[in-house]
Amino acid sequence: MQRAEIIAVGTELLMGQVVNTNTTDIARLLNELSISVYYQSVVGDNAERLKEQLALASQRSQLIILCGGIGPTQDDITKHVLAEFLNLSLDYHQPTEEKLRTYYKTRQRIMPENNLRQALYFKEGKALYNHNGMAVGVMLIQDDVTYIVLPGPPHELRLMLEKEVKPLLVQQKNIIFHSQTLRFFGIGESALAEKIDDLVTSQNNPTIAIYASETEVSVRLTANGDSIEQCEQFIQPIVCQINARLSEYLYGYGDDKLAKIVVDLLRKEGLTISVAESLTGGWFQKAIVDISGASSTFKGGIVTYQTTMKSHLLHIDDTLLQKYGTVSKECAIAMAEAIQHLCQSDIGIAFTGVAEGTIEAKKEGTVFFAIAKKGLSTKWFQLALTKERNANRYLAVQHGLNELRKLLEDRHGN
Amino acid sequence: MQRAEIIAVGTELLMGQVVNTNTTDIARLLNELSISVYYQSVVGDNAERLKEQLALASQRSQLIILCGGIGPTQDDITKHVLAEFLNLSLDYHQPTEEKLRTYYKTRQRIMPENNLRQALYFKEGKALYNHNGMAVGVMLIQDDVTYIVLPGPPHELRLMLEKEVKPLLVQQKNIIFHSQTLRFFGIGESALAEKIDDLVTSQNNPTIAIYASETEVSVRLTANGDSIEQCEQFIQPIVCQINARLSEYLYGYGDDKLAKIVVDLLRKEGLTISVAESLTGGWFQKAIVDISGASSTFKGGIVTYQTTMKSHLLHIDDTLLQKYGTVSKECAIAMAEAIQHLCQSDIGIAFTGVAEGTIEAKKEGTVFFAIAKKGLSTKWFQLALTKERNANRYLAVQHGLNELRKLLEDRHGN
Repeated sequence: MQRAEIIAVGTELLMGQVVNTNTTDIARLLNELSISVYYQSVVGDNAERLKEQLALASQRSQLIILCGGIGPTQDDITKHVLAEFLNLSLDYHQPTEEKLRTYYKTRQRIMPENNLRQALYFKEGKALYNHNGMAVGVMLIQDDVTYIVLPGPPHELRLMLEKEVKPLLVQQKNIIFHSQTLRFFGIGESALAEKIDDLVTSQNNPTIAIYASETEVSVRLTANGDSIEQCEQFIQPIVCQINARLSEYLYGYGDDKLAKIVVDLLRKEGLTISVAESLTGGWFQKAIVDISGASSTFKGGIVTYQTTMKSHLLHIDDTLLQKYGTVSKECAIAMAEAIQHLCQSDIGIAFTGVAEGTIEAKKEGTVFFAIAKKGLSTKWFQLALTKERNANRYLAVQHGLNELRKLLEDRHGN
Repeated sequence: MQRAEIIAVGTELLMGQVVNTNTTDIARLLNELSISVYYQSVVGDNAERLKEQLALASQRSQLIILCGGIGPTQDDITKHVLAEFLNLSLDYHQPTEEKLRTYYKTRQRIMPENNLRQALYFKEGKALYNHNGMAVGVMLIQDDVTYIVLPGPPHELRLMLEKEVKPLLVQQKNIIFHSQTLRFFGIGESALAEKIDDLVTSQNNPTIAIYASETEVSVRLTANGDSIEQCEQFIQPIVCQINARLSEYLYGYGDDKLAKIVVDLLRKEGLTISVAESLTGGWFQKAIVDISGASSTFKGGIVTYQTTMKSHLLHIDDTLLQKYGTVSKECAIAMAEAIQHLCQSDIGIAFTGVAEGTIEAKKEGTVFFAIAKKGLSTKWFQLALTKERNANRYLAVQHGLNELRKLLEDRHGN
């Protein structure tokens, strides 16, 4: 079994000025490729300590991935220290040198000579192309230890990992890897983990990893095999088992989150939508507009944050507000129907509730939302949320998206 | 000079399932206290490798902060390994044991015995109270090396750092620390750094640290001295020098960001506001409603995402839209005045523009926004943004907040 370790280089990490997401990104890739990471470390821009760390790492690991310290300035010492440690000399990588010279030429600027440091690599190894910047990466094998050097800026590192490092490591292992992601809403990380704990423990091909964000959980299955088809054959039965246990929470596969799925469904059906918001205060509309292409389905909406705006902008009947209050299913239904009517859209969705404190004797976290759709009777939903103010608002938005998704998928009889 | 190092414990970190923000939080505190961090490392939940790391660390550092692995399960080995390494025995911390027993008693549940692991500490050391959880932290000095053990969950670790660790380290150093933060908008990190580079380099009391987020930069000055007053005497002259160079970008002091400052200004003046949004799609309203207490100043607003909604919901004159287009200062002004009138608010603010692609032959990133305020002629602003779709929308929101802030501060003749 190959032991890997990650060394991040940069004084800004030691000072806590930057979160070390690079190490996480590298570790995640290695985990996906079933390569075990035993150590992670950070050293500053200091040649002596970096060399010490390399000495330690080369004794205990067969794969050493370094990141950071390959930019143009004198502080950027990673390649130079590695060269000294391995007793090799650095050379200029011609394509990168040309890329640098062209960059400055087309901008009619003179290139400071130290920029060429970014083109340094080992002739004995392999250059890793930088798809999002200048500094070239390096891969080299010496004494059965593989050394990989990556850039520090996260947007450069991520693309280099995906497009350059992953294929090389897969090739080195001589195995094909294939992944599938399942996305869930409405169930917490630990509850989900409990339900599939036996699968996670008993499976090693595919491996099963659970990732959690603020409001959703995803499960990533990664198989290895001789071909993608074989990987899929390993993955599919496990996907079926997971779905059998968690289908009520499953909302999608792959990278698309709820808002993207909803906008895609709306566009596919050629439906337009409008929105009325109270406690969410514009957040639902923002979430829709965050998705590129929303303009063909989202007409517009109204935020009725103060109560008078509900009658003033949305023309909700004052007697209804007095009888049921603004935090009520009746108000949510009236708002959804009013905005749909006002904007002449196919669907109207509306939110009202208490993000914080108490309103009209309704408890904090009480939310009503409603979806009015042409040709259907208006549906309403009630939530009892328990987080703080803005987390409650965000959860209300996500629940709205999820119910909208279910309604739109129902059209196909799913 | 004291050398510090940080060891994070947890297999989930090695696997890339969790970003290591704990190490960043610890490093930031130590940096603020002028304690130099020379190494950071991560080891899994593995006794042998953790002991190796402790052996290495105790030879080269005088302050070793460990985090993670102090929960109730058998995986949580940090305190046990440290006890073995230091040849000490663990004891139960009585107050924590009682806290645990009370927790289960009030919930009428039986406490699993392994929960008591969270109460373990060293009698020879000091218990660090957990303000946000159960597991108690530990501080201990042996052979001139200070060992501190902190919990893994970030919300527990942060409070323990601030409320328990910081005072102890300050006491150990026998010095008072005091900080002031200056917040800037409209200038990039590197441009700002260039303008105060000489101060950053020449100053060590206060130290000057620059932090950058997506749209703003802040500068934190931290001084040490015999009293807060003395620290302030050290800080003030430098604040004046920084302000002299950067006053046009300075928008505030302390922790409050733009939206909070704007909502506070509006509330202080007893002014109400309403919003009309096109490209920002609800984001400005969301940013206002994110601030607790917004309901007393924010009445509501309208999102006119599709062009027809501008005439339909906001009653903008069709001939104006045809003559100048929707991406124009005339449209922004008309929208701001219309929403102010419609909501009967003191201020109306409106955004229109091109987040992505081209609209009406207007370039991507072109944004017009306007502020209509009772008794003043409506002001308009134009932006030429160069980021991607959602970053452009976010920047438009922030520029809107900043101009609103300037307008509101002007009332006082500042």
